[in-house]
Amino acid sequence: MPSTNSTATSLTTIVLLLGLLLVSLFPGLFHLLWTILLAIITPSTYIPQPTHAPSSYLTPSTANIMSWFQKSITLPSKSRGSYLVTDTIVRELPELKNYKIGLLNLFVQHTSCALSLNENWDEDVREDMSDALDRIAPEDRKGDLYRHSAEGLDDMPAHIKSALIGASITIPIKDGKLATGTWQGIWYLEFRASKHQRKVVATIQGEKM
Amino acid sequence: MPSTNSTATSLTTIVLLLGLLLVSLFPGLFHLLWTILLAIITPSTYIPQPTHAPSSYLTPSTANIMSWFQKSITLPSKSRGSYLVTDTIVRELPELKNYKIGLLNLFVQHTSCALSLNENWDEDVREDMSDALDRIAPEDRKGDLYRHSAEGLDDMPAHIKSALIGASITIPIKDGKLATGTWQGIWYLEFRASKHQRKVVATIQGEKM
Amino acid sequence: MPSTNSTATSLTTIVLLLGLLLVSLFPGLFHLLWTILLAIITPSTYIPQPTHAPSSYLTPSTANIMSWFQKSITLPSKSRGSYLVTDTIVRELPELKNYKIGLLNLFVQHTSCALSLNENWDEDVREDMSDALDRIAPEDRKGDLYRHSAEGLDDMPAHIKSALIGASITIPIKDGKLATGTWQGIWYLEFRASKHQRKVVATIQGEKM
Repeated sequence: MPSTNSTATSLTTIVLLLGLLLVSLFPGLFHLLWTILLAIITPSTYIPQPTHAPSSYLTPSTANIMSWFQKSITLPSKSRGSYLVTDTIVRELPELKNYKIGLLNLFVQHTSCALSLNENWDEDVREDMSDALDRIAPEDRKGDLYRHSAEGLDDMPAHIKSALIGASITIPIKDGKLATGTWQGIWYLEFRASKHQRKVVATIQGEKM
Repeated sequence: MPSTNSTATSLTTIVLLLGLLLVSLFPGLFHLLWTILLAIITPSTYIPQPTHAPSSYLTPSTANIMSWFQKSITLPSKSRGSYLVTDTIVRELPELKNYKIGLLNLFVQHTSCALSLNENWDEDVREDMSDALDRIAPEDRKGDLYRHSAEGLDDMPAHIKSALIGASITIPIKDGKLATGTWQGIWYLEFRASKHQRKVVATIQGEKM
Repeated sequence: MPSTNSTATSLTTIVLLLGLLLVSLFPGLFHLLWTILLAIITPSTYIPQPTHAPSSYLTPSTANIMSWFQKSITLPSKSRGSYLVTDTIVRELPELKNYKIGLLNLFVQHTSCALSLNENWDEDVREDMSDALDRIAPEDRKGDLYRHSAEGLDDMPAHIKSALIGASITIPIKDGKLATGTWQGIWYLEFRASKHQRKVVATIQGEKM
């Protein structure tokens, strides 16, 4: 029947037009289609494997899933001393395990304590560190060292130690874990004599697994 | 009429085949479709709103607009001292307000000054800091401390202070603002006695709002 | 013939419905379509070229190729001293030249050495630095300074220096090069007396050219 034929013809035309429309509307997808097809036909070392790089959805050779994560962490309240807080930090950041490559930035929002990386084994190292910093930035017992003294003998030395050690550390992430060395741990150094509760802004960024 | 029926049947078949074709050609989109559907059914705080995150079609739970920005900032010319430059930096970087989550890296391109974060209120703290660093890395008045002396008494101490304090700081960005603590300000510490003009490379990276 | 007409009608309806389905399923793509069309009509300097930025189909005005790269670098084995390792690092990271804007993080996985940025010309500065740090964190020759002494006289001072200088540095990348100042070089400071081989995790992130 001619009527059916013409219907079939117009139908084919419409399907083809629809295809053309799709291609013209989404040139990126069209390019992507060929990239994916080529990637399937000729797999190379550049093509990330699904298990390691789900980020292949964009452009199989270079794209990846970038992701940011930020969280405020309250450190256990402590008085003067050096404390190993690796476990606290890692426990608060289960998101770390989602990142294949990345960086963790820890930033303490205070000016009389500090974050650092140091020896994670011998507690003596942490006590020696606090004492050594006391010698480098001593309290002003004679009253001839500092102008700023209203907040106590330990205040100005705390600011100096904070500047020397630093308010933030950046640690690489590799395969869902902090890429720290065997003996490296995250230290929180409290420089004020009395107990203080410190807040850390943790920012994770990277390429997800 | 049988002819119409067969036409309708082939039409349905073509539509289904077209659907299959789409699914097979764009597996990522197929996966995305379900992700979007799931996201619509079970909305969470992680789903970016279309108006803020046009890239949400990618992966509703994680996709976002990653963005980098870099700018060279010239600090006000200063001689030896510690200076609060938070306002200068923030004024030079109106782009900060576009970032929902991010990091600002400030990097001073010199080796005899430093950047730090410290107390933003009492000017005495800044003067005390400069003096304390002079005691930690003293000038070589007797000529028995340093080999490197050609550039003046203040030069080698400046290099030491620069290594101790550091040339760069990294500050988290949250909801368009620097996530610094109440008392934290950005410090520029000049270690040379005479006036110097210092350049800072500011690099912002993050997820836009 | 009425049958053909109704078939054609239902076909048109199906095509329209299919279009609606696509639009409703992929709202992001619909938005993207207009963004791309607008970008084609009004090209700006922000539009990445297809050959360099296959991800340009995302959001022509802001999208770019974000990329992460991570590598472990073994530094040349050294005993106590300060060493300029800019060339070693740059040689190990040819990937740097692919980044238009970015950051390089270098993280040493040890607690008795450090990374820093300092003067890249006069070798005397490096020797003076090591000596100055010895005065700031002296060895415990009288046995009254440190508890931690089992690993040798140079061990506890090494941990202190490591905390003062820091385990990691972050350097901006601009147009494929490290955006360091004229006189800035990457320093590896070894604090142990005997030779040690140190591993550095290099993490590059940024927007590709």
